[in-house]
Amino acid sequence: MKAVIFAGGTVDDYRLQKKYVVGADIIICADSGVRHAFMMGITPDLVVGDMDSVVPEDLNRIKELGIEQETFAAEKDFTDTELALEKAYQRGATEAVILGGIGDRPDHSLANILLMVNFKKRGLEIRLAGENWEMFLIEGQVQISGKKGDLLSLIPLSREVSGIETRGLYYPLKNETIPMGTSRGISNVFLGDEVMVRTKKGLLLAVKLART
Amino acid sequence: MKAVIFAGGTVDDYRLQKKYVVGADIIICADSGVRHAFMMGITPDLVVGDMDSVVPEDLNRIKELGIEQETFAAEKDFTDTELALEKAYQRGATEAVILGGIGDRPDHSLANILLMVNFKKRGLEIRLAGENWEMFLIEGQVQISGKKGDLLSLIPLSREVSGIETRGLYYPLKNETIPMGTSRGISNVFLGDEVMVRTKKGLLLAVKLART
Repeated sequence: MKAVIFAGGTVDDYRLQKKYVVGADIIICADSGVRHAFMMGITPDLVVGDMDSVVPEDLNRIKELGIEQETFAAEKDFTDTELALEKAYQRGATEAVILGGIGDRPDHSLANILLMVNFKKRGLEIRLAGENWEMFLIEGQVQISGKKGDLLSLIPLSREVSGIETRGLYYPLKNETIPMGTSRGISNVFLGDEVMVRTKKGLLLAVKLART
Repeated sequence: MKAVIFAGGTVDDYRLQKKYVVGADIIICADSGVRHAFMMGITPDLVVGDMDSVVPEDLNRIKELGIEQETFAAEKDFTDTELALEKAYQRGATEAVILGGIGDRPDHSLANILLMVNFKKRGLEIRLAGENWEMFLIEGQVQISGKKGDLLSLIPLSREVSGIETRGLYYPLKNETIPMGTSRGISNVFLGDEVMVRTKKGLLLAVKLART
């Protein structure tokens, strides 16, 4: 079951985000993220958060359209985006895409990226997507589709990631170990449409960027 | 010895960055980051990188001013920002501030944040700074200066961070453990000018945001 989460970060071009909403079983907005949904002509299933950053116009529209709303106290332990993901998880989502996950607040952006780590353990696979990029976690082996010239950055989120093997990249990795905090894995390049990445141990974040 | 590194990300308001350059022993620009230095009227000591994104006007100015330049092949293993930090480290820096470390490329932004982890092990303490925020790592005990109402977000960069104690924050933490990927530590609030944070185990990222 697939969830789409609208967070309150930046969305530059709504047309480029439409593909992520196709086939969604549930659409949940985290607080002011409802703005993005409305801008795309989408009526979400649920809006969660403390509603502190939702503009009055959108609050009215939520009421008019009879959209389910779950309001939390502003003094809560988790961000609105985590609450939205929690709801998606409780309602049975096994995969989720976060749109608007990155924005002006670097702490929120980073926290949203790392939310992927905790929910993955619980069986919810999350992607973050922006105008021309997607991020997701790699543990074990994955195939990644793209286009020749697309960039793929591999970023360790554990102390190190070992046994990294790749196929289909301009700078191939052969049973390599990358420690957290080196930029070794940044800006690799798709040789064709398909890339394989395999890891033995550790948690790797992949960022795919469309060639511009 | 204090280094200032100009990376190629976004700087919105140059006036707010000037304080970070005061007292710098060495100023190094990573490739197009030289633009930021020139915009601030600063002549850097060194420009490193593949020079692929430096505009011709800035390349000319680097020559005219006789600024030391270290050019690397575009097909290199590390980002320009990591090369700049490596130079700072080799020349004896024990602390560094990265300006322009966050920008449009989410992979570069994240890699720049995580560079702090690897250089800290080698004895180079790094901060990233933006218009109204600063980030730095916490291991052990630190005092953080700020203003009442400033925000402090605490984000685990290891599987978990345990034994977290705080003083001077609205939501105090008392010997708590926060696992990576929960948003529990986001948007805590300075009660006064001074905050203490202590950890027992794990690597914690702190993001301080000035009240807006």
